[in-house]
Amino acid sequence: MELEGKVLVAQGGGPTAVINQSLVGVVLESRKFPQITQVYGAEFGVDGIVNENFLDLTQETTHNLERVSGTVSSALLSTRTKPDAKFCKEIFKVLQAHEIRYFFYIGGNDSADTVRIVNKEAELSDYKFRAIHIPKTIDNDLPINDHTPGYGSAARFVAQAFIGANLDNRSLPGVYIGVVMGRNVGFLTAASSVSQKYPDDGPHLIYLPERPFVMENFLNDVKQVYERYGRCIVAVSEGIRDQDNQPIITKLVDRVECDAHGNMQLSGSGALGDLLADYVKKNLKISRVRSDTFGYLQRSFVGCVSRVDQQEAREVGERAAQIAIWHDLDGSITIHRTGNYSVDYRLSRLDDVAAKTRRMPDNFINEQGNNVTTDFKNYVMPLIGDGIETAHRLRAPKVAKILNPGK
Amino acid sequence: MELEGKVLVAQGGGPTAVINQSLVGVVLESRKFPQITQVYGAEFGVDGIVNENFLDLTQETTHNLERVSGTVSSALLSTRTKPDAKFCKEIFKVLQAHEIRYFFYIGGNDSADTVRIVNKEAELSDYKFRAIHIPKTIDNDLPINDHTPGYGSAARFVAQAFIGANLDNRSLPGVYIGVVMGRNVGFLTAASSVSQKYPDDGPHLIYLPERPFVMENFLNDVKQVYERYGRCIVAVSEGIRDQDNQPIITKLVDRVECDAHGNMQLSGSGALGDLLADYVKKNLKISRVRSDTFGYLQRSFVGCVSRVDQQEAREVGERAAQIAIWHDLDGSITIHRTGNYSVDYRLSRLDDVAAKTRRMPDNFINEQGNNVTTDFKNYVMPLIGDGIETAHRLRAPKVAKILNPGK
Repeated sequence: MELEGKVLVAQGGGPTAVINQSLVGVVLESRKFPQITQVYGAEFGVDGIVNENFLDLTQETTHNLERVSGTVSSALLSTRTKPDAKFCKEIFKVLQAHEIRYFFYIGGNDSADTVRIVNKEAELSDYKFRAIHIPKTIDNDLPINDHTPGYGSAARFVAQAFIGANLDNRSLPGVYIGVVMGRNVGFLTAASSVSQKYPDDGPHLIYLPERPFVMENFLNDVKQVYERYGRCIVAVSEGIRDQDNQPIITKLVDRVECDAHGNMQLSGSGALGDLLADYVKKNLKISRVRSDTFGYLQRSFVGCVSRVDQQEAREVGERAAQIAIWHDLDGSITIHRTGNYSVDYRLSRLDDVAAKTRRMPDNFINEQGNNVTTDFKNYVMPLIGDGIETAHRLRAPKVAKILNPGK
Repeated sequence: MELEGKVLVAQGGGPTAVINQSLVGVVLESRKFPQITQVYGAEFGVDGIVNENFLDLTQETTHNLERVSGTVSSALLSTRTKPDAKFCKEIFKVLQAHEIRYFFYIGGNDSADTVRIVNKEAELSDYKFRAIHIPKTIDNDLPINDHTPGYGSAARFVAQAFIGANLDNRSLPGVYIGVVMGRNVGFLTAASSVSQKYPDDGPHLIYLPERPFVMENFLNDVKQVYERYGRCIVAVSEGIRDQDNQPIITKLVDRVECDAHGNMQLSGSGALGDLLADYVKKNLKISRVRSDTFGYLQRSFVGCVSRVDQQEAREVGERAAQIAIWHDLDGSITIHRTGNYSVDYRLSRLDDVAAKTRRMPDNFINEQGNNVTTDFKNYVMPLIGDGIETAHRLRAPKVAKILNPGK
């Protein structure tokens, strides 16, 4: 028994390098089904739905869709709005008015929650309707999933950034602190570990929100590395917290703002990196201490996309359409690792994904809480994709000194 | 009459993505000449010379040299030391002791000056010696040159960063300020203009050190763009100055440090971006204002290299070796544009390049001083290399509203 009607697709939350792959996966797959009368796209996520800002993607050429799929950031534009029950009722009203029978929302755990509530709304109204959440997040914090589309490409950016930062710092030694996105989870910061090739390569220290950040211990760690190598590279999550679970950034409390979700703004400012750099400079008397805050570059940098990530993002979109339209089911598409390296896509319950956060498991973090383990490196390597250029060093022998032979 | 002896090559100043191409160009080309007994590389630039920290690059495999040439940042390591006359005497003493007859220094205008002084020293001592400066700078500020190796790849990073930042900001609108390296010249910041594809694409405003930065005008510019597009992307050089020629960063004077050259530290801190973002936020009451400071990422990001830049960096190294060893001449290798797009390498006088700075010509900057001209875009396009992915947008028609048909 086929459910005839329209498809609606939308994108929510922060954009990623591959989120349009999922969008195009939904659109192209949906257009193959005869019972789908039209495929709409809502602009600016749920805001566009309540305002009926729909594009008729049935009229979009396949060629252009393919080119859009290769473009970073959300082609349908996005929103930070997290709908409450009332807002979800509004959404549902619009969906009904437009005879939308299939709704696909590409986003993180907040988007999964929206899908969950709208779906409940439809059940209560006895409106025949299928809604599926399609995973997307650079933070990699969705439960059940082995990883989420968007993470691999952002991780690739972070890895490439630290390969370069390490070489740069090697040529002009000092302390370098790279601040990476990650409000509650350290997966993205941890990806910096991939850049270590030679034994003395940085990052030498990696600090994650999963472990308390103690300023004194940090100082001591940096001191030890600096004494050993004459330089030190640090990767740190923007969301690091102290022993009382207070974000370190609140030490600069006058400059912090909050969004509609009550989340503190951590990106789009170099404040945390500057705070840590100043702290090292003052206390260790090291003259060359620098910090870079990778900011928005890491989630939508053109030309830094993991091929694996791209393919998986496309497939979760396609699978969502197949599962809703063919199999007549609701839920959240989840990614499961089955081999080294292979994955399966499954349908999970929205209740298990919605509004929940997955953090890095203990076996991914070293005992001192200032680096990652080999387990993590094995986990992340396949996700960042192939073709990253690694560093090569000169290996020529030293020449004997003539003027100061003893030195 | 062939001058038999050793070659010494060194790298100075900030690293670039292609500086090892020049190094390897010198080494491989020098090794072809029978009168060259050995090819040395000094570690950490001029510091390594006075300390006799030499590697015997004659013993380096060609295969590894080729791989090093494709690695970003200075493989011979670098220095910020700017030698004075006394230091140059020390350099010369070491060169003489090791019977070095050919000296190649890859660097900016300070490095050219070092070559100039050491060369004078050799002339005074009647020591048969050839010294050549090989251009390198991401700032693109060497006189006589059409452009310098290192600039194209850094410009490519900036262009790619702004393509992504523009798409990101389009999906979650607000004001975005990207702070780009460039102490005295705006060439690198200006490269952000390449990222404009659609007429409403950012950066909408570009501020360069070549024009005074007036805070009130900046505010007014942002306001106008924001009113027109509902968002605004700004590219700004770290070295922007006010009408009294004071760097804007000095408004945060307690946090600024200076290097050995007396240059203020502008990179490695997000302070300027935060200052500008706070200023916009407070005065225009726009809630979403973000700044990213590209920092060290832009000069040594792996996988973001302009092919043209790579090739030219290799050739200036090769040409330097040929000119010194074959033609028995001193000077600075300079790049001259001869067609669209083709270049010639010439030998220029060290006096004309050393310790001098070239700024952006007037025809590259618009009248209001807040953007670049088409002349500049034509200039920079060939330098960033091919293969940058451009953005593609959905072009599907809007769907008629049902619940609020008038809106």
